[in-house]
Amino acid sequence: MKEYIEQNRERFLEELFTLLRIPSVSAKPEHKADMYFCAETLADLLLEAGADEAGVCETAGHPVVFGQKIIDPKARTVLVYGHYDVQPVEPLDKWNHDPFDPQVHDGAIWGRGANDDKGQLFMHVKAFEYLVRSGKLAHNVKFLFEGEEEISSPSLPAWIKAHRKLLKADICLVSDTTMISDKVPSINCGMRGLSYLEVKVTGPNKDLHSGHFGGAVANPIQVLCEMIATLIDADGRVTVPGFYDKVVELSRADRRLLAKAPFDMKEYKEFLDIREVRGEKGYTTMERTAIRPCLDVCGIWGGYTGAGAKTVLPSEAHAKISMRLVPNQHSAEITKLFEKHFKKIAPKYVKVEVTPCEGCDGFLIPISSPAYQAAARAIGEVYGMEPVPARGGGSIGILGEMQKILGIDPLLMGFGLERDTIHSPNESYLLRQFFAGMESIAKFYDYWK
Amino acid sequence: MKEYIEQNRERFLEELFTLLRIPSVSAKPEHKADMYFCAETLADLLLEAGADEAGVCETAGHPVVFGQKIIDPKARTVLVYGHYDVQPVEPLDKWNHDPFDPQVHDGAIWGRGANDDKGQLFMHVKAFEYLVRSGKLAHNVKFLFEGEEEISSPSLPAWIKAHRKLLKADICLVSDTTMISDKVPSINCGMRGLSYLEVKVTGPNKDLHSGHFGGAVANPIQVLCEMIATLIDADGRVTVPGFYDKVVELSRADRRLLAKAPFDMKEYKEFLDIREVRGEKGYTTMERTAIRPCLDVCGIWGGYTGAGAKTVLPSEAHAKISMRLVPNQHSAEITKLFEKHFKKIAPKYVKVEVTPCEGCDGFLIPISSPAYQAAARAIGEVYGMEPVPARGGGSIGILGEMQKILGIDPLLMGFGLERDTIHSPNESYLLRQFFAGMESIAKFYDYWK
Repeated sequence: MKEYIEQNRERFLEELFTLLRIPSVSAKPEHKADMYFCAETLADLLLEAGADEAGVCETAGHPVVFGQKIIDPKARTVLVYGHYDVQPVEPLDKWNHDPFDPQVHDGAIWGRGANDDKGQLFMHVKAFEYLVRSGKLAHNVKFLFEGEEEISSPSLPAWIKAHRKLLKADICLVSDTTMISDKVPSINCGMRGLSYLEVKVTGPNKDLHSGHFGGAVANPIQVLCEMIATLIDADGRVTVPGFYDKVVELSRADRRLLAKAPFDMKEYKEFLDIREVRGEKGYTTMERTAIRPCLDVCGIWGGYTGAGAKTVLPSEAHAKISMRLVPNQHSAEITKLFEKHFKKIAPKYVKVEVTPCEGCDGFLIPISSPAYQAAARAIGEVYGMEPVPARGGGSIGILGEMQKILGIDPLLMGFGLERDTIHSPNESYLLRQFFAGMESIAKFYDYWK
Repeated sequence: MKEYIEQNRERFLEELFTLLRIPSVSAKPEHKADMYFCAETLADLLLEAGADEAGVCETAGHPVVFGQKIIDPKARTVLVYGHYDVQPVEPLDKWNHDPFDPQVHDGAIWGRGANDDKGQLFMHVKAFEYLVRSGKLAHNVKFLFEGEEEISSPSLPAWIKAHRKLLKADICLVSDTTMISDKVPSINCGMRGLSYLEVKVTGPNKDLHSGHFGGAVANPIQVLCEMIATLIDADGRVTVPGFYDKVVELSRADRRLLAKAPFDMKEYKEFLDIREVRGEKGYTTMERTAIRPCLDVCGIWGGYTGAGAKTVLPSEAHAKISMRLVPNQHSAEITKLFEKHFKKIAPKYVKVEVTPCEGCDGFLIPISSPAYQAAARAIGEVYGMEPVPARGGGSIGILGEMQKILGIDPLLMGFGLERDTIHSPNESYLLRQFFAGMESIAKFYDYWK
């Protein structure tokens, strides 16, 4: 594969760029046509790579791309999952160039989707192409690329349920996560779940003149701040009663294993330009994002937010709150606990509304499985170092769903790095990770027999 | 005057409506032409009412309208101050009709500026017209209407300094405040000052994926909420050190006098649809907005505030904070104290910026002055009840400035009511207050000799 990459390097980048130039932002209705165009472009790429069939399938929302090559009904089957939709690009002024005009510089591909997930899913298409063209393909391969991952896959579960037979496979192979670093390869053996809610605090029934009422009527922004301030205690623990009840404490041995992954606090702080980290007492920074749940305010708004000084005591204040969950915590349950707690702590001078937005459970992957072992061997060879089993801090809700519906485990061969700043301005993907990923994937097929 | 009002009632409303239809929003650059048009319309109204001269004068910002009638250089001179600019109308969806399409229903005038301050300044123009046409005018009258009161009068002090002679007067008469109720007339004998600041809390140097960093890196929204939560203590007191140092405690006698004004807590809560009020311990609701300073968050924003669920740990969080001050507290000093305190309480995992936006000092007016006594007698006759001396919770910064520059005291004959919800959607002005105001003003000229 290494040689094949060298021969086709420029073509690979050109093909990827045709995908990256399409603004397939699933969250925004005005990009509906872009979603279709992106799906069709991707189906064409699959056919060119060697798929027997590939096409765009309707769902209740944005379309799904499905393609496959069946070499032998009795052979092992790999289902590759990825998503062609991308996050919104705002704030636009923080990008160094047009997010949909991909560029290569400083050893990386830059642009929205460079990594998440167009860049990562593209590695699978090219590894497949190599196996087909070199006559080495020994598996049935199915591709499932959705267009709604960034909006939490509302339509995919129904589509999967309706196409159980078509999707039958032995493993679900996914590249949509990160590694510890490009020098310390790792494989995700679990991801966090998610509970995401919106809260609204209402004080007076109308916006008031802060001179006439200020000091006498509870200000809903003040109250919301006071309520949010109590959600995390001095030890960095979430105060929602019952929040930690089902969290499984890792054994000392397991924590020692996780701690083997190198971590440079100085580098970490420099990367973020922060003087100090903050998190749950008694856990390391790596543990805090991997094996521990947490709560974050993802957005807050209320009152006057324009230029200059408007003196208003507003009627409402709002916040979006996400909780990352670890395996065994159930999203639906945590959402209910939060809702109950948030209403309970509301002082009597305001009204509080809580609206659950979305959620998913976390999951774990057994590292003893042959598929995991094959992936570890493949990555180990490419990187010259055995990959560390790691836990992903993010959430890919649909994988847990697929595990439930299709009965197949996901295998997370992710090649992203923290420095790629996916979801943020100036998303990037290191070229050496991009190509090492392709190579590792091709080797995985070789070792998983 | 009463008869004159009855004869001219419809004309008065038509003339006022020509003013109200002009969207003279001083905060928005796109309304620059509207500001000029409104100023010219107002100057024409002054000429029609009987001014010797009236015109539009350039300032560094929006223009000023000046007009006058000098009957005798030795006669007493009244300087009428008002403002023709209005607050922005957002949120537009909360208005029952177009804010610039004024209407009369339910005994009130509805529309942006119906009260603040077009409706109130218009009473002076019509009282003046009556005095001129009936041959009763015994004072020199000068009108100064500015177009920047709602953006804190940045250009007016310089204009006043440059026109000291032109503005020479014995009293500055202003209708831009409220009464306790339409059944309990009152005259403002003081207003609160203001310190308005914007704060910015920066955590990591970029927006982060909340899955990858959530739980390990301080979230600036969380930190801002925690900081804001500490600004007011459990007794409802502002915690900025030194904040209360110069606040003059009123004597028991003075507080008893203020407490004579009727106040119906049930009605107050129903008007705002709140179950409970909140404010500084040891003071009544009326005292909290009149003789006590306070702190309000007027706006807050950070992270993702669009539709749906975006999981982000943002880089920044912002808030706009206003402090209402009482006489003897100095705005510049309080602004500095806040800035110092807010930086001091910032935890080391964030950076904090504080930007002062605007400020003004509060002021008091001696109720023993002949002008105050004349106003009290006039209002007392119209309402059939002696007006209560009250303290306004709002701030009109320019009046304190005028007091300093021109050496004349303001006299606040305001006829607004809390129910008018100025600065908010569905601003209104009760017709009976509008006409009672005109009558009271005309009588004031009669009694102040």
